[in-house]
Amino acid sequence: MTREDTVRVGLLGVGTVGRALLDLVEGRPRFHITKALVRDLDKPRGVARPERILTTDPAAATADVDLVVEAMGGTGLAADLMLSALERGLPVVTANKAALAVRWDEFAPWIRAGRVHFEAAVLAGTPVVGPLAGSLRGSFPRELHALLNGTCTYILAQLEAGRGYDEALREAQRLGYAEADPTLDVEGIDAAHKLALLARMAFDPDLPWSAVAADTVGISHLTPAIVREAMEDGGRVRLVASIVPQEGKWRARVRPVYLPPGHPLASEAVTRGGLLFRGDAVGEVLLAGPGAGGPETASAMLGDLIAAADGVPGPTPVPIAMPVPDHEAEDLGELERA
Amino acid sequence: MTREDTVRVGLLGVGTVGRALLDLVEGRPRFHITKALVRDLDKPRGVARPERILTTDPAAATADVDLVVEAMGGTGLAADLMLSALERGLPVVTANKAALAVRWDEFAPWIRAGRVHFEAAVLAGTPVVGPLAGSLRGSFPRELHALLNGTCTYILAQLEAGRGYDEALREAQRLGYAEADPTLDVEGIDAAHKLALLARMAFDPDLPWSAVAADTVGISHLTPAIVREAMEDGGRVRLVASIVPQEGKWRARVRPVYLPPGHPLASEAVTRGGLLFRGDAVGEVLLAGPGAGGPETASAMLGDLIAAADGVPGPTPVPIAMPVPDHEAEDLGELERA
Repeated sequence: MTREDTVRVGLLGVGTVGRALLDLVEGRPRFHITKALVRDLDKPRGVARPERILTTDPAAATADVDLVVEAMGGTGLAADLMLSALERGLPVVTANKAALAVRWDEFAPWIRAGRVHFEAAVLAGTPVVGPLAGSLRGSFPRELHALLNGTCTYILAQLEAGRGYDEALREAQRLGYAEADPTLDVEGIDAAHKLALLARMAFDPDLPWSAVAADTVGISHLTPAIVREAMEDGGRVRLVASIVPQEGKWRARVRPVYLPPGHPLASEAVTRGGLLFRGDAVGEVLLAGPGAGGPETASAMLGDLIAAADGVPGPTPVPIAMPVPDHEAEDLGELERA
Repeated sequence: MTREDTVRVGLLGVGTVGRALLDLVEGRPRFHITKALVRDLDKPRGVARPERILTTDPAAATADVDLVVEAMGGTGLAADLMLSALERGLPVVTANKAALAVRWDEFAPWIRAGRVHFEAAVLAGTPVVGPLAGSLRGSFPRELHALLNGTCTYILAQLEAGRGYDEALREAQRLGYAEADPTLDVEGIDAAHKLALLARMAFDPDLPWSAVAADTVGISHLTPAIVREAMEDGGRVRLVASIVPQEGKWRARVRPVYLPPGHPLASEAVTRGGLLFRGDAVGEVLLAGPGAGGPETASAMLGDLIAAADGVPGPTPVPIAMPVPDHEAEDLGELERA
């Protein structure tokens, strides 16, 4: 594909993110979305001439295209369709952290070959996968701490402001931050999916999903009182996903913690999503921005589309586990279980 | 080059950054620095077996290597040697913002071809060039504001703490933050070099260096009184490099400004260097970390070395100028000239 060709794109899924991508691509004449796969042709989506573009036939959506963009989500059909496109030689752009986390063994050969572009899978448009798999690889990692779920960050900030949990969750859903099933957000599973991906890209390519899943606690048991108590000395309660050295291995875990005042992830500059990387040579790097949202996620997918169309390979995982440093990770305050 | 081969590297320059890179590469058996170019063989550098590796002959330093890493700095010999290596088909990794900013016309064809890796040229190990030339391209840019010079950020923070200008500058030099000629730092030229690069990568590939140079004011005229006055309401004085829309074009400028409390670049999380990008779909993204330093810069160079050795192309500039939005850029408080 050269810069001059029109790039034909098959889109899988026209929900919040897929719809936002259709809008963004309108401003980029280089890309032409030939077909878009939906479950229900009758659902109104605000797409111009829906009969021309929408289809319920997966084969039609990925026929005669140069690459496939997956915005359906889920670990079933979406993953099957991506794997089938990859086998047919098509690069894939996806925001699907669940599929890549849970079915890593099937995707890993394609990811190692640079055929999968998934910056959008972690923190939407905030660049994290590229930097971790790219220039930050010049440092041996020491630890990573991140706010990876926009819904949880939003709900906790709303509890700080005195709102109730249910009201905050409904508002997060209205704003397009929440996953289709909000249980994935508030139980920490979505953050764990993203963390598993980051861990494999920059720490240990063989970290199993089961280890991360077993080390995950969400925020649904937190009360406004717990959150507001943390604020008394200027701290904050946040759902933090961490990768830390422990007993000679990398441990990836998700749990609500108390962040003291002055902690970079508690900063006013981190209002939505953020990732703190500590490495031996680079010191501390903070990447902050949107953690979720339709246009914010579609932005990263379009960036990946441009890269894929230019022939730039997708991010590849570290070949072997990075050495675990002789170093005590930052001790973030555990919260008592309610 | 496959993962299994040893990658032979010719290093140009063994100052603060080159020396740090030698140290980092010791932990990475994949890379072998065959020769390192220095001006003076007798200067002690703490290099093991200097007679084996050091040379004063540029041809010897770049013979029989797979790629060239430039850490000399300057727009003369360093640039000539890089261009000659590129003409011989060797990828180049460099931290040399001055050469790329001022001699852009000569480097641009190689940069467009992905043959130059220069993440280290802007904000040391903080990932900014890759994200701006990568996933952030999924949004049309609205504006960019950044603290690009570690020496200036350090000096201004020291003035806030009540120290004098000369003492702060000496300490910045001792810490390895300052350029060889600190005039480049304190007069804003180093920040302008970096800004010109960022502007061409993500906003306008044809922005001339002369336009940025003519729009640059440094910090040498600032007094502790000016800096401390800004602190009275919680604000900060910082040297800010900005790319903003103005009269249908992109304007790139460097000048000290007053940042109000709550501004992301005034945040405690931005202690050294930082870049704030605003785009139409992604919203606001903050990238923060080291702005300078030997190991911090060498970290990005090693990251680029790994990418180059894996055959990943370097960052390429936008093909044509990005559309200028109908949007008023953030009005950062100009300081009175002393």
